[in-house]
Amino acid sequence: MNSPVAIGIDLGGTRVRAALVTREGLILDRVEQPTRASHGQQSIIEQIVNLARGIVKRADPPSVAGLGICSPGPLDTDAGMVLSAPTIKGFTDFPLREELQSRLPWPVYLENDGIAATLGEWRFGAGRSVDHMVYITVSTGIGGGAVVDGNLLRGRRGMAGHIGHMVIAMDGRPCPCGNRGCWEASASGTALSKMALENGFADGIQVFNEARDGNEAALQLVAFLSRQLGVGMVNLAHIFSPKKIVMGGGVSNALDLLEPGIRHHIEKNAMPPFRTITLEKAQLGDNSGVIGMAELVFSANTFSVHMEASE
Amino acid sequence: MNSPVAIGIDLGGTRVRAALVTREGLILDRVEQPTRASHGQQSIIEQIVNLARGIVKRADPPSVAGLGICSPGPLDTDAGMVLSAPTIKGFTDFPLREELQSRLPWPVYLENDGIAATLGEWRFGAGRSVDHMVYITVSTGIGGGAVVDGNLLRGRRGMAGHIGHMVIAMDGRPCPCGNRGCWEASASGTALSKMALENGFADGIQVFNEARDGNEAALQLVAFLSRQLGVGMVNLAHIFSPKKIVMGGGVSNALDLLEPGIRHHIEKNAMPPFRTITLEKAQLGDNSGVIGMAELVFSANTFSVHMEASE
Repeated sequence: MNSPVAIGIDLGGTRVRAALVTREGLILDRVEQPTRASHGQQSIIEQIVNLARGIVKRADPPSVAGLGICSPGPLDTDAGMVLSAPTIKGFTDFPLREELQSRLPWPVYLENDGIAATLGEWRFGAGRSVDHMVYITVSTGIGGGAVVDGNLLRGRRGMAGHIGHMVIAMDGRPCPCGNRGCWEASASGTALSKMALENGFADGIQVFNEARDGNEAALQLVAFLSRQLGVGMVNLAHIFSPKKIVMGGGVSNALDLLEPGIRHHIEKNAMPPFRTITLEKAQLGDNSGVIGMAELVFSANTFSVHMEASE
Repeated sequence: MNSPVAIGIDLGGTRVRAALVTREGLILDRVEQPTRASHGQQSIIEQIVNLARGIVKRADPPSVAGLGICSPGPLDTDAGMVLSAPTIKGFTDFPLREELQSRLPWPVYLENDGIAATLGEWRFGAGRSVDHMVYITVSTGIGGGAVVDGNLLRGRRGMAGHIGHMVIAMDGRPCPCGNRGCWEASASGTALSKMALENGFADGIQVFNEARDGNEAALQLVAFLSRQLGVGMVNLAHIFSPKKIVMGGGVSNALDLLEPGIRHHIEKNAMPPFRTITLEKAQLGDNSGVIGMAELVFSANTFSVHMEASE
């Protein structure tokens, strides 16, 4: 097999994942480590460089098209900068792309993590061949991105898709961002964990397990979370008019439990023409980001080739 | 002058506007009438046909590229249908484009009104040469549209941009759509009128006039409305990452009064990288829709010509 591969890296506040990915979205090799989030910028740069070099050395592909890395943000992808990533020490106004580019032999690309995962699911996951979709990831926070009219949305400085900080309840629960009533303040995995503790459960996973066994208190929490998720999804339906919402992140593992409540909310509160929207679990699991970043590398290369050809 | 013109029609629940527009966005002729909203479908079709024929007869342009009409919705622009427009009698699942096309000699195009006005302001108004913008119109309700990465967003069935039905206050004020807490339920001209009456003012215009004179109760209503508008604008900033928000509709005439409160809210509650967003009054006034629809006609024609040329 002589076709090139791309390196996709998904840098998170707790885990960093690196994968070698083919043009067809297949993962040839993959490594995952805890992020050295508290050790500062240079330690993380070193970790990423070692991961990338290591995975290439091990798999020894015929050629590497580039390295794409996504990170929590907001990032300014035009400038290649992490503007602020509170979960990673030293990642404030940090030129991540340049720092990596100066140490690596392949072209380096940077993207916000929500947009990267959207691209992965759109090209190779639950959003394949859908021209209008919204991807949401519900885990510690809520992030995501959108494809409208067959285009992946980036926005000014590549910062579109910060949908977790859409206020759905003015003056509601405090959000880590400093505002109140953000979607992620009431509908994220963190919000669920907090409610779980307040109601005598160990964590969100126990809530879902006991809800499956018919525990009434657990079912009420599931109903509450479903409604919170539903409010945000109806907003996104009215704003983007997607055909499909794809849901990833840890909480999506309980989508079977949550979906009836979400669906009920959509039927009741979306304007009638928007009610036919479908909801589907992400298909790439933890790999939406790395596969999306590899796809970004390949499409950037294709674009460059076209540009040269037309000159 | 031999260049073609396009007919732009903006059909509203109370007024219908028709204009002959050049490729450069200049209005050559314009007519405005009360909409025969209570007379049923055929009466409105007749009204639109007479307006179009009349304006063409009077100006006698060398050629007409087409007729573009926008209407309140939601519309399914792919199918050329008005799905539901509560303010116009009989406009439910109504094939508006076909009904007009069968009576007129020019190609007929249909678009949701918020998207049409967005296109007008983007090409010829306050959003000129901006690749990332959101247009909002604040009048009876709240509508709008978005341009992201240099593309006007349409979404599935052309229904993107129903931003007035983004819930910002779960379980809040009832909205005409049947839901509660929608943005337009607390931040539209209608919401202001209601608050004006409750506080002893005749209407929203009196509120703005007395606020200009320093009336404390009026200033409090202005502050309240500014905050409601600010919440929705911060949401749209996080979702689309626009460079600029352009505000049209009757309430935008008081933007000078509202802007300090909106700006304060943005500075306080948007995530830091989003705070540099600018806010500007729409420049085309009542003509955003007709100019946008004419532009749509011209760009559709250009596209067809290209398609033929490449076959």
